[in-house]
Formats: sequence, structure tokens, C-alpha cells
Amino acid sequence: MIGVMSNEEVEATLRRHRVGRIGCSANDRPYVVPITYAYDGEDIYAYSANGRKVSTMREQPLVCFEIDEIEGPSSWRSVLVEGRYDELTEPEGRTRALRLLNGNGGEPVLRTPSDAAGDGVVLFRIDVLGRSGRFERRDA
Amino acid sequence: MIGVMSNEEVEATLRRHRVGRIGCSANDRPYVVPITYAYDGEDIYAYSANGRKVSTMREQPLVCFEIDEIEGPSSWRSVLVEGRYDELTEPEGRTRALRLLNGNGGEPVLRTPSDAAGDGVVLFRIDVLGRSGRFERRDA
Repeated sequence: MIGVMSNEEVEATLRRHRVGRIGCSANDRPYVVPITYAYDGEDIYAYSANGRKVSTMREQPLVCFEIDEIEGPSSWRSVLVEGRYDELTEPEGRTRALRLLNGNGGEPVLRTPSDAAGDGVVLFRIDVLGRSGRFERRDA
Repeated sequence: MIGVMSNEEVEATLRRHRVGRIGCSANDRPYVVPITYAYDGEDIYAYSANGRKVSTMREQPLVCFEIDEIEGPSSWRSVLVEGRYDELTEPEGRTRALRLLNGNGGEPVLRTPSDAAGDGVVLFRIDVLGRSGRFERRDA
């Protein structure tokens, strides 16, 4: 059966993971890449080198963020977030993003705000507009 | 270091997996979902229930297909395919797609062509226009 996840299951899935995939598109050229993220219960925070992903999101800020847990063709769960790209340029937002990204367990992704300031690393928030989750499991 | 995968590595990654994520977008509303696929060395074959994914790809056929292998924020590989949605409506193409999808190991995803014909299941090919792969690994 295919089913819809409850809000609680969607929330727990967003909190459980550290990597998802972001989908962006400008002029209807879709682009999907994995990103490391942090979720604060409201929005998604992430970073990226300056490149196609960032230039696409700057041009067209509606994005899609996906997480999945796949055991097989008929046994999977996936969460989909639709949101808006918000580039963090002010020190307060950047510091908050770094704290979240470095604080969600495992190795730090960026050690200091200056790591992110140098080398054109972009910090951004995905302002969550909608979220949903679906699953399939084999019928008992 | 971040690097670019060789053609051989990209090819091997496409052959190694059975699940990827497809990104599509119409009117700049990106949509990303996991799909089970088969790869014949040239193109990607997949199926879907009739829904947002199929209606989006019918409206705007340029799609993106992503596979990744992620160990951590600084240790990952990802393959990106850009291609064109081609819905399989003729018996020959549908039979070929089913044979590939059922033949790539594991449980059959669809048992007979009539499974796919009923219930609005759509079979499609992603006509591969370009492929690339990137990786990051910790410097030794």
C-alpha cells in the first residue's frame, strides 16, 4: 500500500537525517544535488560552494528538498519540502546557520564563519512553505 | 578534495544502483522524487503512477536524474544525468522497459505488461542527453 505520512512522521524524518537532495530549476532546466543540511523545527539551513546550484536558486528561488529511506521498490518513505531560497548575508543569520550546521552531530561542516566567508561559500536557508511525506510498504 | 568522476565511474555507478531521484519542473516549480530505474548502458527506464511527476514531465520534458553514495559531509559521490522524458506508449517499448525493470535483480517491480496498462501506470524512458559525476573525499 501507498500512504501519506503524518505530520509527526514528516517532522521526525527531517530531524533524523543530515543529507537530502535539493531540486532547483530556472528556465525549466531542473537540477538536483545532495546537500548537507540542518533543520531547526521550522526551516532548513545549508551551505554550498558558488556554482550552478546557487546561481539557479538566485535566479529562481522556489526549490524542492527531498529526503528518502529506501529498502526496495515496494518499501520506501520519502519526505518532500517545498520552499523558498533565502541567502544568508547578514552576520546574525550566518552565525545561526553555522551553529545549526555544526551542531547536528558528527564532524563540523564548516569550522568558523570566516571559513564560509572565504572561498565563496554561500550559506542559505530554505524557508519552508509546505512539507509532505509518502510511503509504500508491502501489504501484510 | 572535490573531483570529477571518470566516464567509467559514472557508468559503473549508473549500473550499480536501482533507485535514484528524478527532478522535473514545469513553470519553475521543481519537484524531486525517488524512482526505481533500470539502465541499459544508454538510457534510463522507469515507471510511475499517474500523478504530479508524470503531469509535470508531460508539460516540460527536460528532467534531471540523480544518484548518490554518501558517507558524510566530506565524503560522497553523486551522478547527475540530464535527459528528456519519453513516455512509452507502444507495445515494443513498453515490453522492453518492463523486461529491463524486472531483470535488474531483486523482486520484479511489475509482473506483466498488463499490470502496467491497468491502473494508469506510466512507463517511460529518460533519453540521456548528458551525464556527469562528482565526488568529495578527505585529503589523505
